[in-house]
Amino acid sequence: MKASQFFISTLKEAPADAEIVSHKLMMRAGFIKKLGAGLYNYMPMGLRTIRKVEAIIRDELNKAGAIELVMPVVQPAELWQETGRFDKMGEELLRFKDRHERDFVMQPTAEEVVTDIARQELRSYRQLPKNFYQIQTKFRDERRPRFGVMRGREFTMKDAYSFDRDVEAAGKSYDAMYAAYTRIFQRLGLQFRAVAADTGAIGGDRSHEFQVIADTGEDAIIYCPTGDYAANIELAEALPLIAQRGAAAEALEKVATPGKSTCADVAELLGLPLDRTVKSLVLATDETNDKGEILKSTVWLLLVRGDHDLNEVKASKVEGLKVGFRFATEKEIVEHFGTKPGYLGPVKTAKPLKVVADRTVANMADFVVGANEEGFHIRGVNWGRDLPEPDLVADIRNVVEGDPSPDGKGVLAIQRGIEVGHVFYLGTKYSKAMNATFLDVDGKPKHFEMGCYGIGVTRILGAAIEQKYDERGIIWPDAIAPFEVVICPVGYDRSEDVKAVADKLYADLGAQGVDVILDDRGERPGAMFADWELIGVPHRVVLGDKGLKEGLAEYQGRQDKEATKVAVGDIAAHVLAQRKA
Amino acid sequence: MKASQFFISTLKEAPADAEIVSHKLMMRAGFIKKLGAGLYNYMPMGLRTIRKVEAIIRDELNKAGAIELVMPVVQPAELWQETGRFDKMGEELLRFKDRHERDFVMQPTAEEVVTDIARQELRSYRQLPKNFYQIQTKFRDERRPRFGVMRGREFTMKDAYSFDRDVEAAGKSYDAMYAAYTRIFQRLGLQFRAVAADTGAIGGDRSHEFQVIADTGEDAIIYCPTGDYAANIELAEALPLIAQRGAAAEALEKVATPGKSTCADVAELLGLPLDRTVKSLVLATDETNDKGEILKSTVWLLLVRGDHDLNEVKASKVEGLKVGFRFATEKEIVEHFGTKPGYLGPVKTAKPLKVVADRTVANMADFVVGANEEGFHIRGVNWGRDLPEPDLVADIRNVVEGDPSPDGKGVLAIQRGIEVGHVFYLGTKYSKAMNATFLDVDGKPKHFEMGCYGIGVTRILGAAIEQKYDERGIIWPDAIAPFEVVICPVGYDRSEDVKAVADKLYADLGAQGVDVILDDRGERPGAMFADWELIGVPHRVVLGDKGLKEGLAEYQGRQDKEATKVAVGDIAAHVLAQRKA
Repeated sequence: MKASQFFISTLKEAPADAEIVSHKLMMRAGFIKKLGAGLYNYMPMGLRTIRKVEAIIRDELNKAGAIELVMPVVQPAELWQETGRFDKMGEELLRFKDRHERDFVMQPTAEEVVTDIARQELRSYRQLPKNFYQIQTKFRDERRPRFGVMRGREFTMKDAYSFDRDVEAAGKSYDAMYAAYTRIFQRLGLQFRAVAADTGAIGGDRSHEFQVIADTGEDAIIYCPTGDYAANIELAEALPLIAQRGAAAEALEKVATPGKSTCADVAELLGLPLDRTVKSLVLATDETNDKGEILKSTVWLLLVRGDHDLNEVKASKVEGLKVGFRFATEKEIVEHFGTKPGYLGPVKTAKPLKVVADRTVANMADFVVGANEEGFHIRGVNWGRDLPEPDLVADIRNVVEGDPSPDGKGVLAIQRGIEVGHVFYLGTKYSKAMNATFLDVDGKPKHFEMGCYGIGVTRILGAAIEQKYDERGIIWPDAIAPFEVVICPVGYDRSEDVKAVADKLYADLGAQGVDVILDDRGERPGAMFADWELIGVPHRVVLGDKGLKEGLAEYQGRQDKEATKVAVGDIAAHVLAQRKA
Repeated sequence: MKASQFFISTLKEAPADAEIVSHKLMMRAGFIKKLGAGLYNYMPMGLRTIRKVEAIIRDELNKAGAIELVMPVVQPAELWQETGRFDKMGEELLRFKDRHERDFVMQPTAEEVVTDIARQELRSYRQLPKNFYQIQTKFRDERRPRFGVMRGREFTMKDAYSFDRDVEAAGKSYDAMYAAYTRIFQRLGLQFRAVAADTGAIGGDRSHEFQVIADTGEDAIIYCPTGDYAANIELAEALPLIAQRGAAAEALEKVATPGKSTCADVAELLGLPLDRTVKSLVLATDETNDKGEILKSTVWLLLVRGDHDLNEVKASKVEGLKVGFRFATEKEIVEHFGTKPGYLGPVKTAKPLKVVADRTVANMADFVVGANEEGFHIRGVNWGRDLPEPDLVADIRNVVEGDPSPDGKGVLAIQRGIEVGHVFYLGTKYSKAMNATFLDVDGKPKHFEMGCYGIGVTRILGAAIEQKYDERGIIWPDAIAPFEVVICPVGYDRSEDVKAVADKLYADLGAQGVDVILDDRGERPGAMFADWELIGVPHRVVLGDKGLKEGLAEYQGRQDKEATKVAVGDIAAHVLAQRKA
């Protein structure tokens, strides 16, 4: 490709609404162009990277035996009503009517449609396993689209769906996709981690997120640097930090703590470490009738150590809270504790309530809690002596750095990540809802065991940039850079020597299968170099009259501090040697 | 690809709602699967052909200097309001609101968005010409979707848009696209014709449709077998069939023609050839005020020869009818002719009206028209003597087979076609509506001269099948067949010989870059052959124990009446020689 035949559009400044670095750089380097909130034109430069990402995904999925098809963006509501998602999903599911007033949705995913295909096409166990995938436009009507392609409304996603005879076979399909994803992200040239994730109502341990490591990532990834353990923070198990409850050493004492409503303030005032305090969180569950009217509410007190945070996903798995919970109202709090929030605690509540203690809290002794009286706490609190044993003990907190790893192989560390892929065992959730069956070897109909597997194609661009950039611009991995090599001739239109050498190098590299661009735009060297550093092309060759007179060209890798002088005759071989294929 | 790793799904019978052969065969051969009215899943088999079509289009457009990007499916209404299309377009434009009640459309084309990109990105004449294209999902909310991918609602289209400095440069862009389209359809292996088409309000002669020739085509293509002339029927010029008006030979005579209201019936009754009769068509135009209320209507009488048909597109270009016309109401007809439709004519109308005669009618003498009296016609009618000269003489009829070609190189023939591509010079229609300008060499802003160029990617599948099929199934051109070659081993799972030869041939052909599938499903030979003939793979090799014992394999081209026996050692070379690359 010659630059004059292509479309290059760079900006000195990013638009004001670009909040994060990948969004800014993608706009500045001309990869995307905003059309509306969460809607982007994929400009020629960006499309090249998208196509390279897609090609790697497609190649690995094909090798793993998945079969590509394409399902429509516009899908009839009827299928979505079969699974209940038409009503249950929030406003991010875009619903609309056609000219005949029939209901449709724009696909955010395609479980319903692919299950509909399977129940018609896969009639016998002999046709299994099957894994169908598509690389297709998706739509989520985000309330607040932002961060460019990271949280857009229209985006490209690869979604795959596996159909199997039984749980064991589904596990194999899952493992095959996990392995394919690992190869995909390796080939994309990204530093990533597969982390165990919550399976929600489906249960089991078959859900992994593929997270691109980046300091700016939205997600907290928990891992054990000395072992294999890795999970997202929603799932990562928090072991009790105290092996056994100690004996009571202090007497119960009510202390004045005026204006000190946080654990940290109370600990400071009392001269105690924060890990001697206990935080009280008040939740409520409702029993409702068929009409959704509340018949009865139950108030719950959850206790985590002062230096810990409640993990709501874990809380939602506690017996009794599984039905769905909310935070209690101030009225309910006053009624049950006799005081307003800020000084709440489990000792002598106004009314009885269900107490759930985190595993660490359950083993604490001589701890500090609110006194259920404004301006007061009590210290020297001990289970059994001062208050009954908790109703339930459970893991309800987020892990923190330094916690013991659940696999016993060290302590946990935390890093930030951007979720770009997800593999998920669905079980029979969709096949049962849509009565999708096949005839098994015994001649009886059986529901498919399913899995679903997503990769955010356009999101990968943002994640790759968040992972690696500098003050000059993007630093693409070789595999997905819009061009691998740029030839920057200084004086292409003035010097016959420069033109001849540049044209020959361009032809030679092209013949070797290198994706090379020759910048023949006639820009000044400074502007030309700045453009390509912003765009993030990994390898650059500069050719100028001065160097050529000495028989030299200049090579500079995108991350190199300075250029290397290379004999003109060796420059093609030098570039080839620098490539990471 | 081995068949066991792929997804093959064939049907004995087409679903009842498949009306045309391409739709039936695509459903039966498992290329598409219906999701809803006008919505199809592109199944794995169909997607392979789609991807091959796309690759050829992309390759030729890139060679022609066009640059690929992708514009969102969902587009904000604001841009469509700038050009007025948001209100003007019919219900086929799908409009919807997002969660914030903002208006959006699903793109049927992208003139607005690409012009918006151009007005921001193309600031100087130095950046011109530019031609941006995308291969992307489109949506048209057809009132009555049918014929499978031929008239679906969601479909894949390649749309390109060129931006130029002036009319001359725009002509060059147009010519380049015309040439690229010619190469594309040649490479697709389709028999096609580029025909001149109407340019509507834009004017000029810069509009061509690319029509795939097929007896079942919706469109009538007019061409001169002994010259280059080709146009669609809307545009094809109808020369006067009578060079000069003859002298009156008959006296005017009123004749009773009870119950004979068509020209054919009247001619038969009178024992005259049909081309002595003249057909009367009554139109009306309305003058309206700002509120759309009709201030005044004018009634028009259009005359074409009895054996000719009115061409409404041509009529709409007649001075006075350009504002838009409708067919007159019965009330208007009675008021102006003194009688109901069936016996109308231009002689002695009850009220004066505007008379437009087709060029042939204007040169007729001694002709027959209605007498404006139920049950009567008049014969021996002559211009000047019996009625005033027509107000206007114009080409207002469709050409018919045998008409003289407008280029004087012979007579016209008609064939049927399916429109798969369209190149169109837009001029400044969109750039003026959206005030899209660039700075010209004189430093002054100037509106872009634009062109647009579409290819119906998914429609090409239907058109290719309509062009070539037989009672056994589809006959794909080599270039876009889902697979080029199928190897059908008889007893792959039973005979080591068969398996060894099949595997070797599969590997050899694959190594030569042939897109080959090995049918290892273990189907009976009859079912296996029927599947691949239905699917339409161009080349088939059958391997069986019996033949192998004699050192023979069987080759059969999809259109061959019978198989050819070929020595096993030569079979790979034989297949390669049969390929049309």
